[in-house]
Amino acid sequence: MPHPEPLYDVAQLGHVELLTPVLDDSVRFFTGVYGLDLVATEGDCAYLRGWGDHDLTTLKLTSSANSGLGHVAWRAVSPQALERRVAALEARGIEGTWTEGDIGHGKAFRFTAPGGHLTELYYETEKYRPAGDKVPALPNQPQRFTGRGAAACRIDHINLLVPDVVTTRTFMDDTLGFKLREHLVPGSGQGEVGAWMSLMNKAHDLALTREPADTQGRLHHLAYAVENREDVLRAADIFMEQDVFIEFGPAKHSRTQGFFLYVYEPGGNRMEIFSGGFHIFAPDWEPVTWNTEAGGRSTAWGLDVPASFHAHATPPLS
Amino acid sequence: MPHPEPLYDVAQLGHVELLTPVLDDSVRFFTGVYGLDLVATEGDCAYLRGWGDHDLTTLKLTSSANSGLGHVAWRAVSPQALERRVAALEARGIEGTWTEGDIGHGKAFRFTAPGGHLTELYYETEKYRPAGDKVPALPNQPQRFTGRGAAACRIDHINLLVPDVVTTRTFMDDTLGFKLREHLVPGSGQGEVGAWMSLMNKAHDLALTREPADTQGRLHHLAYAVENREDVLRAADIFMEQDVFIEFGPAKHSRTQGFFLYVYEPGGNRMEIFSGGFHIFAPDWEPVTWNTEAGGRSTAWGLDVPASFHAHATPPLS
Amino acid sequence: MPHPEPLYDVAQLGHVELLTPVLDDSVRFFTGVYGLDLVATEGDCAYLRGWGDHDLTTLKLTSSANSGLGHVAWRAVSPQALERRVAALEARGIEGTWTEGDIGHGKAFRFTAPGGHLTELYYETEKYRPAGDKVPALPNQPQRFTGRGAAACRIDHINLLVPDVVTTRTFMDDTLGFKLREHLVPGSGQGEVGAWMSLMNKAHDLALTREPADTQGRLHHLAYAVENREDVLRAADIFMEQDVFIEFGPAKHSRTQGFFLYVYEPGGNRMEIFSGGFHIFAPDWEPVTWNTEAGGRSTAWGLDVPASFHAHATPPLS
Amino acid sequence: MPHPEPLYDVAQLGHVELLTPVLDDSVRFFTGVYGLDLVATEGDCAYLRGWGDHDLTTLKLTSSANSGLGHVAWRAVSPQALERRVAALEARGIEGTWTEGDIGHGKAFRFTAPGGHLTELYYETEKYRPAGDKVPALPNQPQRFTGRGAAACRIDHINLLVPDVVTTRTFMDDTLGFKLREHLVPGSGQGEVGAWMSLMNKAHDLALTREPADTQGRLHHLAYAVENREDVLRAADIFMEQDVFIEFGPAKHSRTQGFFLYVYEPGGNRMEIFSGGFHIFAPDWEPVTWNTEAGGRSTAWGLDVPASFHAHATPPLS
Repeated sequence: MPHPEPLYDVAQLGHVELLTPVLDDSVRFFTGVYGLDLVATEGDCAYLRGWGDHDLTTLKLTSSANSGLGHVAWRAVSPQALERRVAALEARGIEGTWTEGDIGHGKAFRFTAPGGHLTELYYETEKYRPAGDKVPALPNQPQRFTGRGAAACRIDHINLLVPDVVTTRTFMDDTLGFKLREHLVPGSGQGEVGAWMSLMNKAHDLALTREPADTQGRLHHLAYAVENREDVLRAADIFMEQDVFIEFGPAKHSRTQGFFLYVYEPGGNRMEIFSGGFHIFAPDWEPVTWNTEAGGRSTAWGLDVPASFHAHATPPLS
Repeated sequence: MPHPEPLYDVAQLGHVELLTPVLDDSVRFFTGVYGLDLVATEGDCAYLRGWGDHDLTTLKLTSSANSGLGHVAWRAVSPQALERRVAALEARGIEGTWTEGDIGHGKAFRFTAPGGHLTELYYETEKYRPAGDKVPALPNQPQRFTGRGAAACRIDHINLLVPDVVTTRTFMDDTLGFKLREHLVPGSGQGEVGAWMSLMNKAHDLALTREPADTQGRLHHLAYAVENREDVLRAADIFMEQDVFIEFGPAKHSRTQGFFLYVYEPGGNRMEIFSGGFHIFAPDWEPVTWNTEAGGRSTAWGLDVPASFHAHATPPLS
Repeated sequence: MPHPEPLYDVAQLGHVELLTPVLDDSVRFFTGVYGLDLVATEGDCAYLRGWGDHDLTTLKLTSSANSGLGHVAWRAVSPQALERRVAALEARGIEGTWTEGDIGHGKAFRFTAPGGHLTELYYETEKYRPAGDKVPALPNQPQRFTGRGAAACRIDHINLLVPDVVTTRTFMDDTLGFKLREHLVPGSGQGEVGAWMSLMNKAHDLALTREPADTQGRLHHLAYAVENREDVLRAADIFMEQDVFIEFGPAKHSRTQGFFLYVYEPGGNRMEIFSGGFHIFAPDWEPVTWNTEAGGRSTAWGLDVPASFHAHATPPLS
Repeated sequence: MPHPEPLYDVAQLGHVELLTPVLDDSVRFFTGVYGLDLVATEGDCAYLRGWGDHDLTTLKLTSSANSGLGHVAWRAVSPQALERRVAALEARGIEGTWTEGDIGHGKAFRFTAPGGHLTELYYETEKYRPAGDKVPALPNQPQRFTGRGAAACRIDHINLLVPDVVTTRTFMDDTLGFKLREHLVPGSGQGEVGAWMSLMNKAHDLALTREPADTQGRLHHLAYAVENREDVLRAADIFMEQDVFIEFGPAKHSRTQGFFLYVYEPGGNRMEIFSGGFHIFAPDWEPVTWNTEAGGRSTAWGLDVPASFHAHATPPLS
């Protein structure tokens, strides 16, 4: 059932937990090469953030037998909005549980979304407070720019594989207010295979791609943003010099028009360095349907998508 | 009185009307040099838009004895939101009138904001529908990219001079939900001289600067965005080649961190080409106070602000 | 026989003549999309130049039944150097003829180089003199920057297919002073398949690639340079919008490290938009041998080379 | 007396020795912020290079009571060219001495040029050979790109203050083959106040500016190049974060059209981060005279030159 008005109860992708079978290697990659800062470690977990993230932590790495998504967490715009969204979830029959929180955030409503991904909704966060040589020259910046590695700036979006794109995107819209911006419906009768959704002004905070295997809950990729396309090109040089496998890019997506670069972190999870993409200010944005008639091009300039981009996800199929 | 929750009833800067004493010259500049498209002309008015604007028109130029602002128009997120905001304005004692609309939009509530600027609030718009050689390769783009002149892409923000910054920004927050992101309060006891406010994820949709003269209703500048900083540098070359006076930039602002370039259009109004700026995703953003302690730097890299940037506004003082 | 000292008798790639079976379409592409200026037309020929070319003409398009290279012309650094190089060619047994010149240049020594390409060597040129609205703001620039289409700036390098790379590159070095900068010698015993040579500070003015077919005299591509990598990305958008087939790129070459983009002009000839590449200042540069041990990577970031890039050349095989 | 033909006996700016009263601070700045690599230390000297420099060392820092230039060294294209140039210097009455060489290069002819700058001419150099984690992914690159600090890539040009610009530039042309590319001759009868000269394809390897004081031998600035304008903008952020005084830029020069950024290293010497600039391929380049008629603009986009840029040089006036 469509909302009577655009719903702005959810603010942003707050943080993501990734599982990795090689925690130390993953931490080394994310800090030294991808360019995040290590904020805390606790047990088998490490907490990180980008230099442009205002929250204390946006990435949690957890040691695990397999790679993949631990959970994805969305931040509500207010305590009241959190309550409203939990009520909407429960009205939908979702059975969730409240957690006490984690390093960087307070209590969270935890549930499994259609498609099998563990999801959290929360409001209370701890902001990052720079000190010492982290204090920036500009007080509107969360910390000093250091330029280490690819210097990934801030958490941007996540792409999840789901068995049925329409089911999941409808659920995310109905319960949380994710707005459909673009979807891919090839003309061959196979139905909708991709959807790009966002909360406010971005082209996407969440992408849903059809899971090709008989499984669920898998991760396609997690993306951090950088400021310019030149930063993406520079990241490619950094990855090349550090022997990081570059799967795809730098190039320009047709959907979202973002400038992308995909690599695998040592644990096997696909990570993107992303810049740009168009912005959406119209509250009555008309979803764009990509089909055979609309060209259906995968990338803006015609670059072919490598087969692994369709086949690889985490955890890998056993 | 602070809102109990973040308010998202207003979506974006919809369009702006600028007055010019040399309409033909202004149209020539905006189309041939600044890079907008002419959409329609009617009487003494011309209607334009950027190639990345999804609405039919974002700039109206009106022939007038003086330069300056005709009116500034904000788009609500829904018909209901429009009603709520009008009710809030009326509760505040604002006396406005409903207009029948204009080329590109439907009925609008028109009133004078504290500071003297004619302001409209509206919801209904006409979307731009590309045809012929305007149809883009990517259907998520409103029209084909042509790259003419500085190729200004989309309307971005406006800076207005107001006698009392705190009064106007409080009003804009209370009635329309503009969120204070940064303000400038020099340590010398002169009070607040600048405020940067936004609606959703941008660093600013509206900037308010203290009016130095004994007048009101004046325009500091109107900005269109381009995608990259290189586009701003390229625009500087274009302006140089076309003998357009470059007042300030390209350089990086400290507030908003935007990459800027200011010129005067033939009618005398200051126009900006803008790129970047940080984004705000936190619903509980803490306004940044720039004062002597915070460095108070005017531009990020130390470039001095030219005197004209503080002195020139439109209409000029007689 | 190696030169006793580095030889600097040849200055630059002066101009190139391309053959096209669709002259009008080619002229339309080169002026409207690729961004060159039309300087003159004469009979079945059109003469063009980039906005950053200091000579009157750098590209001649000639109507012909087939596409391909008409001739490639190198400019000597002085009349005396021209004489020395012609003497060296003749000492090598080359039989050439002197032509009276063409639009844009004076008398030229014309001969066929090993590999079958018609080649000219000349000194006298006519410089472009801007007038009217072509006069630039900066007098060290040959003309006003207009920014039309991809705005190809200046002629940069050419890639020719030759049956035997070592034979041709040795000849070009011995007679004209082309310095070997890099060559590709895959470890599989197939010998040298590519060589990159330059005259002064560039990574390459001339590239030689092994001709896969039993023919000679074919063109792989001609390149014009732009100032920045962002200009290459922008060109890709321009080509996309104009339905120009993008074969390869934008991406970064491993050899020369140039940032490239390849398209076909309507006549079928492959054209590159190129930016960057490393510079060579050492007079004793040690040629870099790319082989299996050196990684042998085709592009810096791992992008695969499309099959057509190896197969397509002009004229096409009948 | 003009050369009968363009002379290409000198290849490049080889290395520069800077004096600093705070050697440790200067080393810290050049390695940690400016981004050079420390190659060796010996006594009161430190030897550095950019990650894109092919020679072992391009900058020597020497502890001294004052800041300023130790010496500037130009590399000949061959041993024979070195002999020819020394003969030309001696024929001109220059009395020089041969030094045994230094870390990174062999014997050098050392003399004082008109204007008072200690100058070396040499041929033999030691190339940098990367090992361990310095080995680059691309063998045509001297070492791995690390991206530390502003990541200054390679030595580019030097600007020296001289009492008489015409005298010095004529000498540098006559004896070493520096070609005049542009000069500044304001219309006010004060004569030539600046000259930009280069050896091969660059817009300048050497700039000469009129010394305003009654002294000689002073340094205006030394520049290293970076690949893109975005790298210059990024360097500005790095300098800002590290509290390095930014004197001028980023902006675009009118002469050379280079994109510049000037800071002072801790010893007081002015250092530039430079990108771009036009290239010169014509062997018969006509020097551009900048005077009142040619606009005489100091920077391309109209940015004013700060007073310190004319007044500050090293050593400072006592």
